[in-house]
Amino acid sequence: MKELKQWFDSISKIGALPDGGYYRGSYTQEELEIQELLTKWMEKSGLTVRKDAAGNLWGRIDGEFENAPPIITGSHIDSVRNGGNYDGIFGVLGGLAAVKRIIEEKGKPIIPIEVVAFTGEEGSRFSIGLMGSHAVAGSLDEDDFKTKTDVNGITIAEAMSKVGLDANKIKDAVRDNVGAYLEMHIEQGPVLESSGLSIGVVDAIVGTQQFRVTMYGEAGHAGTVPMANRKDPMVYASRAIARFPEIAKNTGDGVITVGRIWAKPDAENVIPGEVSFTVDLRHPVEEIKQEIALAVKSVCEEEALPGGKEIGWLEFPNNIATSMDDKLTELLEDACKNLGYSYKKISSGAGHDTLNMAKLGKVGMLFVPCKDGRSHCPEEFASIEDMNKGVEVLKSCLNKLAYENTLNLTN
Amino acid sequence: MKELKQWFDSISKIGALPDGGYYRGSYTQEELEIQELLTKWMEKSGLTVRKDAAGNLWGRIDGEFENAPPIITGSHIDSVRNGGNYDGIFGVLGGLAAVKRIIEEKGKPIIPIEVVAFTGEEGSRFSIGLMGSHAVAGSLDEDDFKTKTDVNGITIAEAMSKVGLDANKIKDAVRDNVGAYLEMHIEQGPVLESSGLSIGVVDAIVGTQQFRVTMYGEAGHAGTVPMANRKDPMVYASRAIARFPEIAKNTGDGVITVGRIWAKPDAENVIPGEVSFTVDLRHPVEEIKQEIALAVKSVCEEEALPGGKEIGWLEFPNNIATSMDDKLTELLEDACKNLGYSYKKISSGAGHDTLNMAKLGKVGMLFVPCKDGRSHCPEEFASIEDMNKGVEVLKSCLNKLAYENTLNLTN
Repeated sequence: MKELKQWFDSISKIGALPDGGYYRGSYTQEELEIQELLTKWMEKSGLTVRKDAAGNLWGRIDGEFENAPPIITGSHIDSVRNGGNYDGIFGVLGGLAAVKRIIEEKGKPIIPIEVVAFTGEEGSRFSIGLMGSHAVAGSLDEDDFKTKTDVNGITIAEAMSKVGLDANKIKDAVRDNVGAYLEMHIEQGPVLESSGLSIGVVDAIVGTQQFRVTMYGEAGHAGTVPMANRKDPMVYASRAIARFPEIAKNTGDGVITVGRIWAKPDAENVIPGEVSFTVDLRHPVEEIKQEIALAVKSVCEEEALPGGKEIGWLEFPNNIATSMDDKLTELLEDACKNLGYSYKKISSGAGHDTLNMAKLGKVGMLFVPCKDGRSHCPEEFASIEDMNKGVEVLKSCLNKLAYENTLNLTN
Repeated sequence: MKELKQWFDSISKIGALPDGGYYRGSYTQEELEIQELLTKWMEKSGLTVRKDAAGNLWGRIDGEFENAPPIITGSHIDSVRNGGNYDGIFGVLGGLAAVKRIIEEKGKPIIPIEVVAFTGEEGSRFSIGLMGSHAVAGSLDEDDFKTKTDVNGITIAEAMSKVGLDANKIKDAVRDNVGAYLEMHIEQGPVLESSGLSIGVVDAIVGTQQFRVTMYGEAGHAGTVPMANRKDPMVYASRAIARFPEIAKNTGDGVITVGRIWAKPDAENVIPGEVSFTVDLRHPVEEIKQEIALAVKSVCEEEALPGGKEIGWLEFPNNIATSMDDKLTELLEDACKNLGYSYKKISSGAGHDTLNMAKLGKVGMLFVPCKDGRSHCPEEFASIEDMNKGVEVLKSCLNKLAYENTLNLTN
């Protein structure tokens, strides 16, 4: 527990904003500072450190079976703008703590163990989510590196070059043959805290689909057009949005969010001619996610029908729901039971680097509670005690995977 | 009918925008050009022309009873930005046509007749609605003249000085003792056209109340907060807005419009912490207008209750519903009947200079149909034939009021 607290104390000064929040972007001075500290701590823990072509930092301890696919744990360094001190970085520091403790206890493993600190998971600097792990999974669109810029107009390639990386070599970051990837993260939601539980064993990362819906009507003077003559898309949009919670609740774990809405021409005394809003919908089961999308579309079409015009329906990228590996989930549950920690199975409503690592091998995730379920804000907080329980669960799983070779990775 | 067509033909070149719309602001070159034409046409029609201290143009023919309070007709010159060629200017040209015709037929009246071309009714340049008629009614806030500016930072006083007016003398524009004010206007709504009627005899100008409502909840991650744990003001706002049409319809002539809406923090993947929207509500009967406002507030409070926070309720200026004079309304109806024009009583959903003239004497209004009920846009259109029927009704009323002295204004 001591090392975890010390590491958090050291790291909490980096990227701190005057108002109490944090911003740690990819390929920034802040990232370099954290990587420097991590390198030191990894080496002290018995790991050999390297940075890959994408700027992800890896620490590794070889195993007796040097060519066996490694057991990897970790998460990401970067934060959203005005975010907190726990999202991502906890999975890196906590993962390293677990690895440090198991090495101290047991020495060299049978299967190699690695700790990874991904860059650019949040997409807060360059608008590419999961960037570092995409590079590792080989699923990056490399054109983005020359065209996408941060708010100051600096391309990804230029930013990389400033921290000694070469965007042309990005393919060197691609890996294959991962034995298992276990990611630890704060929950970012209220479920564990409100149920008084210590650990969330993730069974799936929800699929996400976002749309922009536009409903059309007829703009008109707010005073001169009687109600009966109106074709008011504000009313249609409201009727549709008011029905979304029922759609979501009928699917159990589904969620539907309307985070943005705007009217045109956007004047107090004018009936809008069009109203647009975004829909973000998620479910841990891909088929049900798609059913929710169909239900949302059908409700929108139904409510906009009196306008006499087809709705606008713009689809944004779609993330497929991803199940965690059954064996790893079982390992995590067993560890909780053996350690006497209360836990529940839970789906992750947010995306994680685990989505990319699932392309390379078996994946599992565990959550620890965070205060009031808040994340991506300065109030984000997890206690050292709660985080330490996660470390112990992870350590127990690493023992099974790397020292007892539960997955039989030496074949 | 000939003069009306000629005048519209001449005027339709002034303030015309490349895309087919019009912009005629107060104290602009466009206004001066129109005033120059009007002066010529007024003088040819037998009127003596003067411009008052606010920049309103008046043409007058004395009556046998020179000191009797005058019969006035007219409307405003200015247009909204990207507006049409009929709103306002029709009441000026049509009023002048009626006066011209009755003078040609009957010569000098018993009661003086005046035609007025108000400036600044729309508030499109300086954000003060009914500015010219406020000056005449003595209800202007004179400080505005030194502080309020157009989009280029020019104050009203500076703009006035560029067209030869002195803002310090604005009080000279105040009048009293008006015998009757009759304003003719395009309907700006679809009622007359869709009922196939020629004339709308206005019985009241609706009262208007605008609010800005803010509903609060708890911002959160769109993926990690289960539906049951959410306090989502987007849902509350939608439920409330979806109920407004029913409130309006229950009051007969009431209308409720939500023209603007926005969420904070305004991100696709964040449950909003607050949602704000505007409400514009109108009814021709002041008491009912106030009842609608109470009902809207109560629905908003009820729907926002699960958020656990009081709604924000910002009141904007309130226009009191104004009834037209019964005798003038009767005169207008009789004129329609005698001329064989179909008509109906109708309330005006928009405000007009008539609201200010009602402070000085008896007022009446009549509407003619406009195409598809559209106004404040380039598509705004009224046919010469339809407008001419309005002119004939107005002429008939001027005959009663100024030549037959129906209101007995010589006492």
